[in-house]
Amino acid sequence: MTVAAVQKQKEATFSQKHITRVKDLSISDITAILDLAKHYKNERTPQKILENKVILNLFLENSTRTRVSFEMAALRLGARVINVTADGSSVKKGENLDDTLRTLAAIAPDALVIRHGENGAAQKASEIFECPVLNGGDGTNEHPTQALLDAFTLREKFGSLDGLAVVICGDIKHSRVARSNFHLLTKMGVIVRLTGHAELLPSDLPTVSDMREAFKDADAVMMLRLQKERMEKTLSMTEGEYFKRYGLDAEKLGWAKPDAVVLHPGPMNRGVEIDGVIADDPKRSLVLDQVSNGVFIRMACLDLLLRT
Amino acid sequence: MTVAAVQKQKEATFSQKHITRVKDLSISDITAILDLAKHYKNERTPQKILENKVILNLFLENSTRTRVSFEMAALRLGARVINVTADGSSVKKGENLDDTLRTLAAIAPDALVIRHGENGAAQKASEIFECPVLNGGDGTNEHPTQALLDAFTLREKFGSLDGLAVVICGDIKHSRVARSNFHLLTKMGVIVRLTGHAELLPSDLPTVSDMREAFKDADAVMMLRLQKERMEKTLSMTEGEYFKRYGLDAEKLGWAKPDAVVLHPGPMNRGVEIDGVIADDPKRSLVLDQVSNGVFIRMACLDLLLRT
Amino acid sequence: MTVAAVQKQKEATFSQKHITRVKDLSISDITAILDLAKHYKNERTPQKILENKVILNLFLENSTRTRVSFEMAALRLGARVINVTADGSSVKKGENLDDTLRTLAAIAPDALVIRHGENGAAQKASEIFECPVLNGGDGTNEHPTQALLDAFTLREKFGSLDGLAVVICGDIKHSRVARSNFHLLTKMGVIVRLTGHAELLPSDLPTVSDMREAFKDADAVMMLRLQKERMEKTLSMTEGEYFKRYGLDAEKLGWAKPDAVVLHPGPMNRGVEIDGVIADDPKRSLVLDQVSNGVFIRMACLDLLLRT
Repeated sequence: MTVAAVQKQKEATFSQKHITRVKDLSISDITAILDLAKHYKNERTPQKILENKVILNLFLENSTRTRVSFEMAALRLGARVINVTADGSSVKKGENLDDTLRTLAAIAPDALVIRHGENGAAQKASEIFECPVLNGGDGTNEHPTQALLDAFTLREKFGSLDGLAVVICGDIKHSRVARSNFHLLTKMGVIVRLTGHAELLPSDLPTVSDMREAFKDADAVMMLRLQKERMEKTLSMTEGEYFKRYGLDAEKLGWAKPDAVVLHPGPMNRGVEIDGVIADDPKRSLVLDQVSNGVFIRMACLDLLLRT
Repeated sequence: MTVAAVQKQKEATFSQKHITRVKDLSISDITAILDLAKHYKNERTPQKILENKVILNLFLENSTRTRVSFEMAALRLGARVINVTADGSSVKKGENLDDTLRTLAAIAPDALVIRHGENGAAQKASEIFECPVLNGGDGTNEHPTQALLDAFTLREKFGSLDGLAVVICGDIKHSRVARSNFHLLTKMGVIVRLTGHAELLPSDLPTVSDMREAFKDADAVMMLRLQKERMEKTLSMTEGEYFKRYGLDAEKLGWAKPDAVVLHPGPMNRGVEIDGVIADDPKRSLVLDQVSNGVFIRMACLDLLLRT
Repeated sequence: MTVAAVQKQKEATFSQKHITRVKDLSISDITAILDLAKHYKNERTPQKILENKVILNLFLENSTRTRVSFEMAALRLGARVINVTADGSSVKKGENLDDTLRTLAAIAPDALVIRHGENGAAQKASEIFECPVLNGGDGTNEHPTQALLDAFTLREKFGSLDGLAVVICGDIKHSRVARSNFHLLTKMGVIVRLTGHAELLPSDLPTVSDMREAFKDADAVMMLRLQKERMEKTLSMTEGEYFKRYGLDAEKLGWAKPDAVVLHPGPMNRGVEIDGVIADDPKRSLVLDQVSNGVFIRMACLDLLLRT
């Protein structure tokens, strides 16, 4: 695809100012992002299209992969990045989130990437900042670029998303990844089944209580980390018991289609929600493809939001 | 103003190697900085004049706005930035400040921005580093770029600084912002009155004990944060009582001129030293203008010190 | 030396994909690095040879000088740098080192610089990453760029390494600097003697128990910091006693050659392993030369590994 063709397609299909919630994205928006990410994955030539742009990476929750992935995406497009993390921030001097956001907005970055523990933080930021805002994860609410990279990885594997069956299993209740994936994959024609331990199922989404039933005929299984840092009370079982009953091992994976693939947004707790052997199986596991693809998805998002 | 004109003016008026103390700056130095900052605020075209320069941002005290503001200023001029913060520094391995500074000087950055808890730290750094040193705040001593951006904001609002009356109110004793502003504004022809709770007034500067008297006919009111982290003993009153007696509310603001403007260097503690309604009043509050202008002031400082 | 000559020499002599262990480096590899570092020290013109490269600086142990030195080296060659430190990393979410490395490898930086508390971490990383890996210090094992910059500093001072006598004194047992220096200097024809307090001597290297004997006829004395953070049990003496018996003072330095020079990898603990007067003596101490030269050594390493 030529740059002109990419540009044409972009103009034709992408119509967002921010990427904070999957529910704001149309099928056309999503397709534009996936297609441009594919272009960047194929090309891999140095880009300078964001040469004079400064991206503010505001990560008020711990993160490595998402922060580094956004930073790499920005640098690969020629942009510059300012990182702000929770440590050393003014939050410690008693400033509230609104004032922190207003202050950083006044410094006038060309785009904001925000991760925050509070649901709706990215949405709030998009109302304060004049520049594009990208949600890098807000509380248990949304993590749209993760859902985009998961969709990309599945589309790359299966050629098309339409009609696939994907089971998402684990700590759904506390997972912004599950929420964003549920909405995005459903929108793209995927049958999504959410399952796992009853204590970890949400009340705001349709779920399947029987794990074996949820796994039946699944093309892909996405396992989620136990987010202990978000649980109000501890689980009623040990990690060993949890693994035995809900962790992905060869037996449970056998409930899905014979060649079903495995995804995990990371970081993985081996022996808790997933068997290390499966995580490392090159025929089944797409875990590292997800990470690689994340850079291309974020390049596409930054490009579509920022290129003038 | 053309680049040639800027260059000419710079040569004519700015004659400092470092910016560590307001008292070293002449009226001509200050005017050169304010004028060049105004130029950058008006132009907003991408700059590459510091393209091959590396700025070392050494922030050994917590900071968000000042660090990010300096980093943005450097990036907007095409420079690159290395950040060093207190976390993860060699200070933890028992190294003293002199050795840390000598070591970083040997790495040979093109400029140093330093924030440190010790009075005189920036001055000390300027004796060790061969490159220009910019003081990003040292203990309770000085914060010259904050005073410059405050002067810029006032000059922009009123057209000229000469003859203005500015009251600075709050924790003057522990405030490097108050000290730098007192010296800079006084030098530029402003009548500066320092006032607040007796326990928070300094012994090294002239003060006005009666708040109402200090506010009388003031064109601008600058409120300061309670710097609890620097107090040897706690205040003799609660925050609620402090707000009632010394916090800026509509009644106290009424003591100043009818259209008096409000400044605050941030981070703000709403309901402690300032009423949130006043902080957010677009007709009175210049708080976010201060932040925006900070980037242009720091661009001007870096340009004047570094352009060859 | 012209760029063409440098290029020619590089092709002729440097044949490594990674720099993780001194023992992998041939005399020719080492000479190529030292020569190119000398070229960079003499030239000091802005470089863009790594303009489109992104270096990942993964520092999972505290560091200032090494991290900043690598970052400066990368920036001076036109590269961009992503920093990852222990704070805020996924390690806190229960991820193991292998998964952290695989994840970061999937983000596809152009080079990795790694510091880690575990012996062999850099070697492990070189098996996971497809790009060049540079060891910034792994446990008590190796710190090859430190040994290279020490060799550079000694060669610059004495004209040649061959036949020099160097004593390394202090906490050898816990020192990766001592190990890398012992192997590198020995390979380059230097007579290396390791000495110090018996409780701090290693079992894996030849040592000289009598300090005075070790110092005899030494051209250079390299003092090492007490690495309390790595000691399983505390020393049997106070720091004051340690300084008296094993710290470098004028009397002990007198045991070496009359003009013997002094090195220290930093950070220094004055009054513990070294007398401040000696550390600051411009005729004897090369401590700040070591730091300066570190940038040029790391520029040479990055260039040789990355230039295409």
